[in-house]
Amino acid sequence: MAVTTTKQRKTSKVNKFEIILKEAARLFCEKGYEATSLDDVADAVNIHKATLYHYIKSKEEILYLCLLRSFEGYEQRLEELKDASVPVADRLRRFFSTLIEAQNNEFGRCLCLVGRQPLGTESGDKILEFQRNMGFAVRRLLQEGIDNGSFKPCDTRLAANMIFGAFNSVPKWRGPDAQTSTQQIAETYLDLFISGISLRPKAMLDSGAKKAPGAARRANKTT
Amino acid sequence: MAVTTTKQRKTSKVNKFEIILKEAARLFCEKGYEATSLDDVADAVNIHKATLYHYIKSKEEILYLCLLRSFEGYEQRLEELKDASVPVADRLRRFFSTLIEAQNNEFGRCLCLVGRQPLGTESGDKILEFQRNMGFAVRRLLQEGIDNGSFKPCDTRLAANMIFGAFNSVPKWRGPDAQTSTQQIAETYLDLFISGISLRPKAMLDSGAKKAPGAARRANKTT
Repeated sequence: MAVTTTKQRKTSKVNKFEIILKEAARLFCEKGYEATSLDDVADAVNIHKATLYHYIKSKEEILYLCLLRSFEGYEQRLEELKDASVPVADRLRRFFSTLIEAQNNEFGRCLCLVGRQPLGTESGDKILEFQRNMGFAVRRLLQEGIDNGSFKPCDTRLAANMIFGAFNSVPKWRGPDAQTSTQQIAETYLDLFISGISLRPKAMLDSGAKKAPGAARRANKTT
Repeated sequence: MAVTTTKQRKTSKVNKFEIILKEAARLFCEKGYEATSLDDVADAVNIHKATLYHYIKSKEEILYLCLLRSFEGYEQRLEELKDASVPVADRLRRFFSTLIEAQNNEFGRCLCLVGRQPLGTESGDKILEFQRNMGFAVRRLLQEGIDNGSFKPCDTRLAANMIFGAFNSVPKWRGPDAQTSTQQIAETYLDLFISGISLRPKAMLDSGAKKAPGAARRANKTT
């Protein structure tokens, strides 16, 4: 008879917890948050609802944890935006190329499709703070580009809202089994946005092309 | 004693119906569709719930009628997109300048914030068809611009999704009492998008500036 060690039990519990979050996130995206019950989540993970309560307290807690997961690793991404040794346009490309991957995994889709509205004030505010920090970081980068003569003077809040709006909408029209890759989308959006905001669009696209081979193909095709 | 004529009663019934739709749309945007009950709608309009049923059958019917309202007048807007006597960039500007007004009134906000997800298949499909027609019309316009050498060759589906995504997100971050006008937002988004997609951005912005005095100020400031 196999002996289950404490370590194995602990690992198994962590795995089950991750599976619960992923399945719940998938259901929230597919059926909508309101229409998904804890019974649906328990069924999807193939456990009894009573067992589900060993892992989580409520549907709201699951949503909150899913939304928090969608920001994992973003402290580092925001730090990278400050690296003055990399041209601003390239930093913008890297940031949104990473963002689109995060936005289109289970947890990111959950943030884009369900959003923080069903959460209580405290949890909702924490998610809002994350979103605001990302917005401010991109605005600072756009301002840096304006100050060093790379970008046209413009309202950085509106420009940041424009590009975030475009990226946030991707999970709405692109299903999880879509043919168009997230990187194709990111390249097209960033080529249009960067050449729109740049004072010397051609030079900016060439600079982006040197850093990312995928972007090079697009830049050659479109300029 | 005042005598109420049949005509007055009819007008009053039509007005009440419009008030019900507007108040319901406002509640759906503020509280969310799921969290709004027919009691809330009846309270907001200051009528008894039983009386509400003289006007509408269900909450889903109200949402459907609100979403239909958000597309009113759009057949004409789509026809205008075909007018080859106006430069493509100017047609794009006019279309999205009108769209942003429609998206930020009660009914348009309802479409952007609630969406068609809570509707049944038949009603949802009709809304989807409207949205698709708008998407196709903008893609055809972008293709016309590419064919006549105004715009860079690009994936018109992705470019259209980008600009719609940006505009659709406005009601999410801009409250109904916002300081920033919808036309300021439209100008910034269109300046960036049109100079991003244009082969001769400066000429395109100047062309837009001639048509719209507001755009002229922005173009002078940003180029």
